[in-house]
Amino acid sequence: MNPIDKYNQRAKKINSLLCVGLDSDFEKLPEKFKAMENPQFEFNKYIIEETHEFAAVYKPNSAFYEARGDKGLQELKMTMDYLREKHPDIFTILDAKRGDIGNTNNGYVASIFDWLGFDAVTLHPYLGKEALLPFLERKDKGCIILCRTSNPGATEIQDLYIQGSIFNPFRGIALWRVMAEKVSKEWNENNNCMLVVGATYPDEMKKIREITGDMTFLVPGIGAQGGDLQAVMKAGLNSEGLGLIINSSRGIIFSENPKAEAEKLCEEIRKNK
Amino acid sequence: MNPIDKYNQRAKKINSLLCVGLDSDFEKLPEKFKAMENPQFEFNKYIIEETHEFAAVYKPNSAFYEARGDKGLQELKMTMDYLREKHPDIFTILDAKRGDIGNTNNGYVASIFDWLGFDAVTLHPYLGKEALLPFLERKDKGCIILCRTSNPGATEIQDLYIQGSIFNPFRGIALWRVMAEKVSKEWNENNNCMLVVGATYPDEMKKIREITGDMTFLVPGIGAQGGDLQAVMKAGLNSEGLGLIINSSRGIIFSENPKAEAEKLCEEIRKNK
Repeated sequence: MNPIDKYNQRAKKINSLLCVGLDSDFEKLPEKFKAMENPQFEFNKYIIEETHEFAAVYKPNSAFYEARGDKGLQELKMTMDYLREKHPDIFTILDAKRGDIGNTNNGYVASIFDWLGFDAVTLHPYLGKEALLPFLERKDKGCIILCRTSNPGATEIQDLYIQGSIFNPFRGIALWRVMAEKVSKEWNENNNCMLVVGATYPDEMKKIREITGDMTFLVPGIGAQGGDLQAVMKAGLNSEGLGLIINSSRGIIFSENPKAEAEKLCEEIRKNK
Repeated sequence: MNPIDKYNQRAKKINSLLCVGLDSDFEKLPEKFKAMENPQFEFNKYIIEETHEFAAVYKPNSAFYEARGDKGLQELKMTMDYLREKHPDIFTILDAKRGDIGNTNNGYVASIFDWLGFDAVTLHPYLGKEALLPFLERKDKGCIILCRTSNPGATEIQDLYIQGSIFNPFRGIALWRVMAEKVSKEWNENNNCMLVVGATYPDEMKKIREITGDMTFLVPGIGAQGGDLQAVMKAGLNSEGLGLIINSSRGIIFSENPKAEAEKLCEEIRKNK
């Protein structure tokens, strides 16, 4: 099945664009979970059961599991096994920001798509399309390319102006814009590409929407990072009222009441559609 | 200890700039090792014992271990424990090509520098210096930023021309060149930065040497990928006759006689110094 169809089906079924980020940093877990044999897995299971009726997507960030070595990776695998058994129609993304040369990327494909079983992965564009082919050629999996990230220093590289033609050298465009054009027009032969577009840059999001048609964006940066939901929805929804995967991590999972926070954000998304 | 000093000491001690890439893809291991309980670790141990007298550096690529899930990660850890016990003066790099937002990068720092114990890691530049601070601030560890990668499609993004000033709009420079300038002049406050510069692009390497002074380059692409050692040494050595970490992976580890291949490449490096 096409990965974007899988996401859209889930989003329509529950009328939600919410992605719950399972950034289950061991140090930040409630003491109750820290004492368990599989702390990150048990915490994730709890979060999933509290939030699944509002979640179109779950997105663990690999760094928080790798921080605990092979043990963390085991618990990430347990989380995925649990999700695929209990909630197989929820879309899953590993936020891993990978990107090596072609031959080597096969190892990440084996790990992330086949062993762990994720529906999609986030990827760095710096090595070009040719290097990313092992990901791009997996028609059943989603490739979410970094375009405009949500961090304050995103502008340093992503705002570099790419030179225009010799006929109009003054009309350069920013690197993030080049990436949006390349991914939507050249990298997306299998209709399995998406883009990371941070909630903290709604003006850029609006332009990226214009460039990419109905492409789906993974949107980090709502909540703890300061992104404004209303501005994001206005700038980013596509012609079908979809096209956004709105992520919140810390704001939900480390709150007093994850269920209430997920419901609240889900309701805000519904109101702004 | 400064990581580049550690590398230079080892390189001078054995008169070698050779990095043996432990790209120990399970599928490509000799049958003898495949049947063992810890195939990737046992293979690495064998390669290390055959090649250590010529190796200034060992560089596993994380993808080949992650492909086997938590088991692969365990064997990567066993490899590092073995290396640090038996050959503590050999420099170690995890070729992981990581790069997330700041807060999240702490997880990779914990995993790669503290749990596994590597001396250095390879990093993507797309999120900017601010995001990479958790790596850059580790004065005892090396940050090897992707500048000009060795793959055939490297040019797609890395050759994009960055617009010059409005006074001279025609004088743009390629993105790889901007990266060389930024890393050497702005990101290297702790003298712990290096650059990835592929052996397959010696002309670019020469320019990057001019830009960066005596900065150390990790050079993939010799051997299987077609890079020419003599051209690389001519273009890339720094004023101290160092400044290069010359990697060979498949050409050594999957040869009939890894020791002979490592010695041969080490001798060629010595001849061209």
